[in-house]
Order: sequence, then C-alpha cells, then structure tokens
Amino acid sequence: MKNILKKITNKSIIITIIGLGYVGLPLTYRFIKKKIKTYGIDTDEKKVNYLINGKNYIKSIKINYFKKNKNRVFSSYNIVSKSDIIIICLPTPLKRNKPDLSYIKKCMKGILPYLKEGQMLILESTVYPGATNEILISKLKQRFVIGKNFFIGYSPERENPGDKYFSYQKTPKVVSGHTKNCSLIIEKFYKIISKKVYVSTSIAVAETSKLLENLYRAVNIGLINEFKIICKKLDIDVFDVIDAASTKNFGFHKFTPGPGWGGHCIPIDPFYLSWISRKKGYDPKLISVSGKINTLISKRIVDEIILFIKNKYRNKKKIRFLIIGLSYKKNVDDDRESPSYAFFKILNNKKIFFDYYDPYFPQTILGRVNKIKKKSIKFNSKNISKYDASIIITDHDIIDYKKLYKSSKLIFDTRGVMKKLQKNDKKGKIIFV
Amino acid sequence: MKNILKKITNKSIIITIIGLGYVGLPLTYRFIKKKIKTYGIDTDEKKVNYLINGKNYIKSIKINYFKKNKNRVFSSYNIVSKSDIIIICLPTPLKRNKPDLSYIKKCMKGILPYLKEGQMLILESTVYPGATNEILISKLKQRFVIGKNFFIGYSPERENPGDKYFSYQKTPKVVSGHTKNCSLIIEKFYKIISKKVYVSTSIAVAETSKLLENLYRAVNIGLINEFKIICKKLDIDVFDVIDAASTKNFGFHKFTPGPGWGGHCIPIDPFYLSWISRKKGYDPKLISVSGKINTLISKRIVDEIILFIKNKYRNKKKIRFLIIGLSYKKNVDDDRESPSYAFFKILNNKKIFFDYYDPYFPQTILGRVNKIKKKSIKFNSKNISKYDASIIITDHDIIDYKKLYKSSKLIFDTRGVMKKLQKNDKKGKIIFV
Repeated sequence: MKNILKKITNKSIIITIIGLGYVGLPLTYRFIKKKIKTYGIDTDEKKVNYLINGKNYIKSIKINYFKKNKNRVFSSYNIVSKSDIIIICLPTPLKRNKPDLSYIKKCMKGILPYLKEGQMLILESTVYPGATNEILISKLKQRFVIGKNFFIGYSPERENPGDKYFSYQKTPKVVSGHTKNCSLIIEKFYKIISKKVYVSTSIAVAETSKLLENLYRAVNIGLINEFKIICKKLDIDVFDVIDAASTKNFGFHKFTPGPGWGGHCIPIDPFYLSWISRKKGYDPKLISVSGKINTLISKRIVDEIILFIKNKYRNKKKIRFLIIGLSYKKNVDDDRESPSYAFFKILNNKKIFFDYYDPYFPQTILGRVNKIKKKSIKFNSKNISKYDASIIITDHDIIDYKKLYKSSKLIFDTRGVMKKLQKNDKKGKIIFV
Repeated sequence: MKNILKKITNKSIIITIIGLGYVGLPLTYRFIKKKIKTYGIDTDEKKVNYLINGKNYIKSIKINYFKKNKNRVFSSYNIVSKSDIIIICLPTPLKRNKPDLSYIKKCMKGILPYLKEGQMLILESTVYPGATNEILISKLKQRFVIGKNFFIGYSPERENPGDKYFSYQKTPKVVSGHTKNCSLIIEKFYKIISKKVYVSTSIAVAETSKLLENLYRAVNIGLINEFKIICKKLDIDVFDVIDAASTKNFGFHKFTPGPGWGGHCIPIDPFYLSWISRKKGYDPKLISVSGKINTLISKRIVDEIILFIKNKYRNKKKIRFLIIGLSYKKNVDDDRESPSYAFFKILNNKKIFFDYYDPYFPQTILGRVNKIKKKSIKFNSKNISKYDASIIITDHDIIDYKKLYKSSKLIFDTRGVMKKLQKNDKKGKIIFV
C-alpha cells in the first residue's frame, strides 16, 4: 500500500484505462495532461488504429499522445501486468430490458491473468448496486486479500458530452473503496485530476448515487414531456410556461421537452435500478411511467405531424420529411440511443419517405439501435425545399435556422429552437410538436 | 388607465387585499412597508379581531398596522369601493379530489356590488388554467370593457413559508394581464414590492406556470420517497446516497425523503392540473403515480415501525408513540395538509396510543384534515421516556435532538435529522424509516 501511495505522490504511477469510448477517452486525456504514464486498451481494433494514427473518433477529444507513443495503446490485455492502477470504462447497456454487464465480465476474464499484488482495480461504468462486489470483489478475493495486497474501488463517471466547460476541477469526483485502505488510495489517486474528491461511505452507495443522478433526469424529462402533452390539450404554449416558471430562483429546475430521450445514461440507468429493485421485491412505479412517456412521446409527435399534414393537404398521398439532427443532444457527435433513430423507425414502419441532415454525421451509424443506412443531405435551399416538411429533432447550434425556415415548406419543431423566429412567422410555417 | 398608473407612480394608490392568510398577510406586510395605503378583508372575524388587537396568528409575521389603523381591516366587502386595486388571496383547496374554487366564487359575489370603473382586480390564488377567465373575466366583461375602464390580472404567489430570506426583491414576481393595458398596470404595480417583475404572455400561461412549479416539487418528492423505498430493499443508506449525488454541481437538484407531503400547494396543485387535463382528454400519469407514492409512504412507514417494535418486543401488547412535530415542514407554525395528521389518523385507526410534541402548536388544530384533539406534551426527559418510541415527523431546528435521543427508548426518524447523532448511537436506538 505504501508503495502505491508513494507512486501517486511522485506521479510515477502507471495506469491503464480499459474502454476508450465516451468515458475512457476523456479520462485518458485528463491523466495524460497531468503527465501520468497512461496505457489504453480497447478491444475494438479500429479505435486503436485511429489513436495510433492520431485520428479522433470523438470530435471534442483530440489526442496525439498515442500517435507519439504507439506502444501504449492495445487491443489486448497484456499491458495490465505493467500497470499500478487499472480503470474499467466499459459500456453497460440493456439487453432485453435487463442489465447487460457482459463487457465488464469479459474484461475481467481477460485481465485476470495479468493482475498481481499491489495493484488497484477501479470500475467507472454505471452498474446496479452490488455489481462491483459481484463481478470484481468476489472474484478477486479468492486470489488476494483486498485492502492488504490488492485494492478495489468504484468511481462513477460524470462526463457531460457536449459541455466544453465540464471538468473534474469544478465537478467533484465521487469515489469509494472496498476497505479503508482502498478508499485512501482511490481518494489520493483521483485528486490528481480532480480538485474535489468525495469519498462515499461504501461502494454500493457510490454505485447508487450515479443511478439517482440519472434517475432524477429521466423522471424530470418524463415530467416535462408529459407536461407538454397537457399544455397541448389546454392550447397553452409550453415554452412560455417554462420560461415563466424558470424565473423562480429556488425550488425549481428547468427541463425542456423534446422528441424523446437519448444517450447512454438517461434511457438506460433507471432500468438498472428498477431491475434490481424488482429482484428485491419492490416494483418502482415512477421509473416505468416516465420511461413509457419518454418512449411514447416520439410516436405521439409523429402522429401529430401526420395529422397536421393530412389536414393541410387533403389529397396528399406521398409525404416526404427532412429530419434535422441525428445526435441524441445538441452539439455532440454522439448518436447513442438517439431519438432520431426512433423517428426513423416509426416513419419507416409507416412507409413514409424521409432524409436527414446532421453536420456531425455524414452518414448514419449502423448498430444495435439503428438499421437504416442513409447519408446526410447537403444543407442548401434547393435540397431543403424538396421536402414537405422539416422535423427538428436535434437543435445543434451550428445549424442555420433562418435558412432552414426560409427553405422549408413547414417546420415541425420538437425542441423549441424556432421560438425566436416565431414572431416573424407570418405564414405560420413553424409548428411546435 | 392614466389615472391608475399615476397613482402607482406617486404611491397614492389604495389597495385591498382579500384573504389574510399565509399569502395575503405577508403580501399586506410587503405593501405596508412600502407605505401603500392597504385595506384588509377576511370573512373570518377571529382573524380580523386578532389584527385589530395587534396579535399575530402567523408567527413569522408581526403586523401592528391594523392595530394602529383599526378601520382598515374588515370582515365585509364594502371597502372595496374605496380601493384602486383589489387582490384576491383566497385558498383553493380540493373537494372530493376536484378543484374547489368556492372561496373565490363567493368573494366575487360579495365584491361585485362594490366594483367600479377604473379599478384593477388581481387574483393571486393558485388555480387551473382558464379559471381567472371563467370566474373573473367572463363575469366582469358584462359590466365593463376590460382593458379600457376596468383591469384584470393574475399573479401567482410564490411565498415560501419558513424561509426568512424569501423576498420578492430576490425572487421575481410573475404577472399577467387580460389585455396589454392590464399587463402594463400590473407590471408597474408589482414593481412597488418586487425588483424583478416578469410579464408572462397570457393569464393562462401565468396560471399554468405556478402549477408547473409545484408539479415539479410534487413529482420529485414522490421520486425521492420511492427512491427511499428502493434503497431500503437494497439495504443502502438513502441519505448517504443523496449526499453523494448532491455533490454533482449541474443537472441535479437535491430532494430529501420524508413522512409524506404537506402544505397548501404541493399535495393540491398537481391535481388542479390533472383535473383540467382529464377534462380535455388526457389523463396525466406522473401526477397520479407520485401522488399515490406520497400518500402511501405514511402508511408504509407506520407499518415498518410497528413491525420493528413487534420484532423487538415479542410480547408487547400496548404500544405508545410520541409524534415529534405537527407542522407540514420545519420551522413553520403551519399545519395545512400536514403528514403528521396522516400519522394521527393511521395510528388512531389501528387503535395505537400516541401523543405529540410541537413547540409551534400547544394543541392540535381541528379542521377539514384533522379531527383529533390533543395537547402537546411538555418536552422533558420524564415525559419523553414514557413512550415506547418517538417518531420524528417534522424536523424543527428548535428541538433539542440530543435530549430527545437520551430520553427516548427508540427513535424512528423520517427526516434524517438524527444522521449526525448516528455515529455515537451505540445502543442502536435510531432507526431511519
């Protein structure tokens, strides 16, 4: 233990980050900036090659480190044996509505031969309470005395994609250790990149705190989406109401309605909690209700749009839509669980033609969520005017909304980004859905 | 119109506030402080007598004004004819789960003979969207040309009982008018007491904004109460989890679990919205689910306490509880819709004996919610030790929790206020429920 603490103090600690995605890559960057010798592992060889060639696959993170140090990024696990601290940043998705921890489990199998006395293993992935114990601790305590000759910790990631100003200098890092010694080491370790490190009372508390953070967001997105439905029924402008309520400087937190929900956290994490809760005998109500609202809202919006078009053009047989935005939120090149794909699917099922435009995505990404291959159109008046309507799903700042307004026959706005152009909309082309 | 604007400018405006309760009385106080000639009306003669005698019935508001000006507070409506601006601050409760606007309707009948050209009538009560139109505007437009020779506005109250630092100098006042002229007058008028006046786009928007503010609180209280249930099932300390999550400095807003919900706003306002929404064809899901959680949580807690006691004392036949706190939230002498009364009712139904202690309430208040007559016990060791357990419902700061700990056989804490004494609780007397 003294050894590892000393290495942290004099910054000679060697770390390995496993999983170089939206969490692992920024984390790598933070440690590199602090001149910590950092190895990277990703089983996706494409990512490894990108990094070796100095290319970036996440727009906001430009890393030259692995181009300069080509022997520090791998698709295999051997290097783990040469590391003092190993951090796992792997995805934890859902599979048939159940937590899918297979990435972490596979990784554990892979690194097991390379783990040795004196190391610390840290998990940053979002998991259900007890998972670190099940998958990491219970395995390793057969070989090591945790807290004596091996150390295990959990620290939930708090990355905020698209937020340029996010930093662990401003945002505290929650950490936890399996024993007191583990807590001591992990606290000291994360102080390298974070001004405020908060040591929670147990690993389970830290695991659950991350779920609470995202549960809060998921339910409040559900709330404001349902509130939008109510306002529509009452014929009241939901954005005006939110503006008025947001002037309250205590006890209120502004959320805005949208086309659904997206990203790797909000539509997934709550179900980790409800899954384990149900296993223990309590079926959470708010999680499932807000989940249903956030999923159904996309279908609701499409129905509303089609009804509008049908009422406007009585004899119209074929409708052609232009979807604006593929990212799950604005200003990021991140399409994980994007509601845009939900719209793709719904329109496809209804056999309605559509194209899309997103400056962050020249083409769609095929994967678990999306099976539809398309290329982004070029953003010019001629192209835009070909469609019966544009549907704004993602409100990227970079988009020229005035041009979009001028060239579109109709604009259905799910984000309220056209509010500022509404005043001059004498033709009534803007419809908030 | 010029006349009323001029009077506001030179502060010669005469106002009448109808309903001198938790909203009307502080509002009166704010205008009196600005040297505005203010009349008060409350049909409850007891209140009028209190005020004339300089006694205060809301602890935090001491008003000598009506003692000095005995002819400015009435239980009848005549004085309305001598006022420029009339503000209605009457309660809007639920009756059989439906909005009960009878107080406002009765008031409208009462003041109608005394309304005249050039006046402005403002509603501050929380109502469903459209209610100001239904009850005020539609009646008065038969007699006046609203916006020309009579003015109508709506401004939702934002009082925060128990918050010494609340002020409309810090918190913006949302206002709205039926016409542009109405908006102009109401904006100028509230600037007398508020630094920031926000003019919303319509009365319906202002009405709805207030409901959104409290809907947000109601759903998040439901969320954190349900989250507590989940944490219990997982055997994780919910307060530790909340502490860890609260270190997130963006995208998170801390709520703490409790014994249920209370006050005149949170358990009521959401049902105003769901009632009107249902009338328009949409049955809101999140409101009803969070409502159910917040109502059921009290019963759940009592069941948990009784189970604990029964497991501890196998042969115990009669249990005696001491309820700590009668107010719906800490540091206020306000028992409206207090969860303490829910506990009273549940224990009474189960024929379990209990007493209570609350420094703010020497005796219980009989009314719509509570039918049980009791006197607060004296807070001393001998008294406290008579009971099998204390149950903390309201966490007033003024209570001596160390004494409570020492003298109680067991303490069931619904608020987490005993967290700081937990470390030294070697006897395991503190149980968080």
